[in-house]
Amino acid sequence: MPQIEKNVSIAVPEPTLRRLPWYLAYAKMQLSRNEMYLSSTQIAKNIAVDASVVAKDLSYVNIAGKTRVGYDTRELVTELDAFLGFTKTHKAFLFGVGRLGAALLHDSGLQQFGLEIVAGFDAKYELAGTRINHIPIHHIDRFADLEKQTQVKIGVLTVPIESAQEVSDLIVATGIQAIWNFTPFRIRVPDNVVVQNTSIYAHLAVMFNRLNAINN
Amino acid sequence: MPQIEKNVSIAVPEPTLRRLPWYLAYAKMQLSRNEMYLSSTQIAKNIAVDASVVAKDLSYVNIAGKTRVGYDTRELVTELDAFLGFTKTHKAFLFGVGRLGAALLHDSGLQQFGLEIVAGFDAKYELAGTRINHIPIHHIDRFADLEKQTQVKIGVLTVPIESAQEVSDLIVATGIQAIWNFTPFRIRVPDNVVVQNTSIYAHLAVMFNRLNAINN
Repeated sequence: MPQIEKNVSIAVPEPTLRRLPWYLAYAKMQLSRNEMYLSSTQIAKNIAVDASVVAKDLSYVNIAGKTRVGYDTRELVTELDAFLGFTKTHKAFLFGVGRLGAALLHDSGLQQFGLEIVAGFDAKYELAGTRINHIPIHHIDRFADLEKQTQVKIGVLTVPIESAQEVSDLIVATGIQAIWNFTPFRIRVPDNVVVQNTSIYAHLAVMFNRLNAINN
Repeated sequence: MPQIEKNVSIAVPEPTLRRLPWYLAYAKMQLSRNEMYLSSTQIAKNIAVDASVVAKDLSYVNIAGKTRVGYDTRELVTELDAFLGFTKTHKAFLFGVGRLGAALLHDSGLQQFGLEIVAGFDAKYELAGTRINHIPIHHIDRFADLEKQTQVKIGVLTVPIESAQEVSDLIVATGIQAIWNFTPFRIRVPDNVVVQNTSIYAHLAVMFNRLNAINN
């Protein structure tokens, strides 16, 4: 019933989606310690989130706790992994094989969370034909052809800021439906395209500022 | 006057600190296009943030716009870069040279934003003595000694979730004052320690969910 699934997907608030991976991480850790049951109180205490928030967040996931013992840890891990999309493989193209782009190609850890980068693209001709961590790099001119063949839906954007909007326009026009934007540039896309901004450098600025406040 | 600087640092709200790098990115791009002046309206329009928000955010930074022409683009870039801490070099140690850790060691781009990872630490003896991107990797047992010599204040945490709390306790006890936490685990630290959570996998979950909503 795609109609229902659509509604369910839309209904999950972003703060919930951001907290669920914390619960998953904690549940995985407890599972590795052979803790077979987990209560929302226990999760709440260890993650420093209110127990009512934990219970509410977990109500979106297809899992029911048992009276007195709580959630089955293994079931919680399995259900959360699936709910968050980490068990499915989502193929992606990466655009901009500079320093951060190359670093992400090296991060095979992404696959554990459902993202498989199948190719990188760059405007530099000398990169075309090379591989990083076994992933082939192509010239950006080949993107349209490869997109037609593969129907990849996700683009990881790691180009220089000057090219962020231009590359974003290009890839959206050719079939990319979601952009994981690592550039500090705020790209504009049509309404039906998903943008996830992950500005790791903006996080650095927050950390520097807080650290500075401690030391002055 | 450290007292005043302290208050200033504390007073900058996190949302502002997260938006300022967007303005910086935009200003850098405009500078590369030889646009010598920028108005807050122009920044606002291009970044899809309210003009009053842009003006308020920039009021924290030591820069004044000129009537009619706006901000001097070059000055804006210089001041924002300095204000955000990107022009100073902050030395850091990285803990956990797994896939994500190794990827971050490969990301020389971090240096442009003021973060220099000077060494990596891992519990695996076979990694000790190796280098990634010229950065030396040591066994975690050597951390206390090297910390005493170097007084590094920032720790980048990329260990497996099972070790996140333990390693965090260890490094905080030995002098680390700020932790850039890439693990999905919510570490607990004393009040005087800064934690910046950057859960790139949590962002993936949000993106998958939104993409799924489009396609159903």
